[in-house]
Amino acid sequence: MSHVTIDSECIKNCSTCSETCFKTAMNHCLQMGGKHVEPDHFKLMLNCAKVCETSACLQLSGSHFSHHLCKVCAEICDACADSCERVGDMDECVAVCRKCAESCRKMAA
Amino acid sequence: MSHVTIDSECIKNCSTCSETCFKTAMNHCLQMGGKHVEPDHFKLMLNCAKVCETSACLQLSGSHFSHHLCKVCAEICDACADSCERVGDMDECVAVCRKCAESCRKMAA
Amino acid sequence: MSHVTIDSECIKNCSTCSETCFKTAMNHCLQMGGKHVEPDHFKLMLNCAKVCETSACLQLSGSHFSHHLCKVCAEICDACADSCERVGDMDECVAVCRKCAESCRKMAA
Amino acid sequence: MSHVTIDSECIKNCSTCSETCFKTAMNHCLQMGGKHVEPDHFKLMLNCAKVCETSACLQLSGSHFSHHLCKVCAEICDACADSCERVGDMDECVAVCRKCAESCRKMAA
Repeated sequence: MSHVTIDSECIKNCSTCSETCFKTAMNHCLQMGGKHVEPDHFKLMLNCAKVCETSACLQLSGSHFSHHLCKVCAEICDACADSCERVGDMDECVAVCRKCAESCRKMAA
Repeated sequence: MSHVTIDSECIKNCSTCSETCFKTAMNHCLQMGGKHVEPDHFKLMLNCAKVCETSACLQLSGSHFSHHLCKVCAEICDACADSCERVGDMDECVAVCRKCAESCRKMAA
Repeated sequence: MSHVTIDSECIKNCSTCSETCFKTAMNHCLQMGGKHVEPDHFKLMLNCAKVCETSACLQLSGSHFSHHLCKVCAEICDACADSCERVGDMDECVAVCRKCAESCRKMAA
Repeated sequence: MSHVTIDSECIKNCSTCSETCFKTAMNHCLQMGGKHVEPDHFKLMLNCAKVCETSACLQLSGSHFSHHLCKVCAEICDACADSCERVGDMDECVAVCRKCAESCRKMAA
């Protein structure tokens, strides 16, 4: 499918965001407890990781549906970044989510 | 998150569609060869399986983003059903994809 | 690969165990808090869900490596069942984990 | 779980191997056809990608079961590298599989 652009920068941002959100949830958040394991926040972290993984997967396949998934990915990454800012002490997650949201928004345009 | 509906019927349709597409691609399509492993068709089968799995995952979490993913899921399921119809001899895949597309479309509405 | 047995009962047990552990962690455990989100227990629930999903995936593919993964799957399912028993109030998880462990152990033999 | 070592090098090798095998299967192999889509070879590429992803996931969680999964991962990576060598023209896949197998073997020891 030569007419589908594979943007390795966006794939890398999705993979990094997926790993960072998952690792942070499973280690930092569970260790900290309190608002870090509040249901809405914690579920958002894991669901963001899952959507980023799936976005990377479709892009790696050169799928025509990458754009649709990148749109959802940009939205959940922004929501996750907002939630991490509210909880505080999660600067790395905020940064990778914002970066991933930005490149996914471009892909979805 | 009591205000998020968990529709176990749609989750079941997504899980069944994911397993059926994956199993059919990995066994039937690879055995048959020819148009069954034509890149666009084969990638669609695996990507459809992945998006259905992710849609089930978000619904199981009661995520607010389930609706967004169900929308993409309905589209890729319909595209996969169309492709399976063109290839032929894939009635089970067509049926589960159409059923999943229908329930995801209702969830996304 | 006609010489690889596809046991649809074990696949179903793995899929059910994966969904039940994930759904229970994301809803019941996060709502309850306390010992339900204690790091070792909560991580075990999610990792068990992941390994069960992967075990189902390899079995659906008719992979020669299914047996190896079923062995690991039986072990993590038993560990997850033990942890759920200690935490208490998680009877459904205990039951699906024990059932999955049993069928995986047979597959791995 | 302070007594579980998180080896970021092995996690990176697993993630890279997973992405490379998946991307190569979905693009190079499907484009080339012939022995590149022979069932045993193609399934091994996708199953190797899945096991590597799961190995990375458990290591990112600091799971006590990482060692068990790293053992399976080393075996499927070596099998995938062997298969890629037989098919030929897949040097990148061979290299990342060998590298991943080596670091997983150390983790499993």
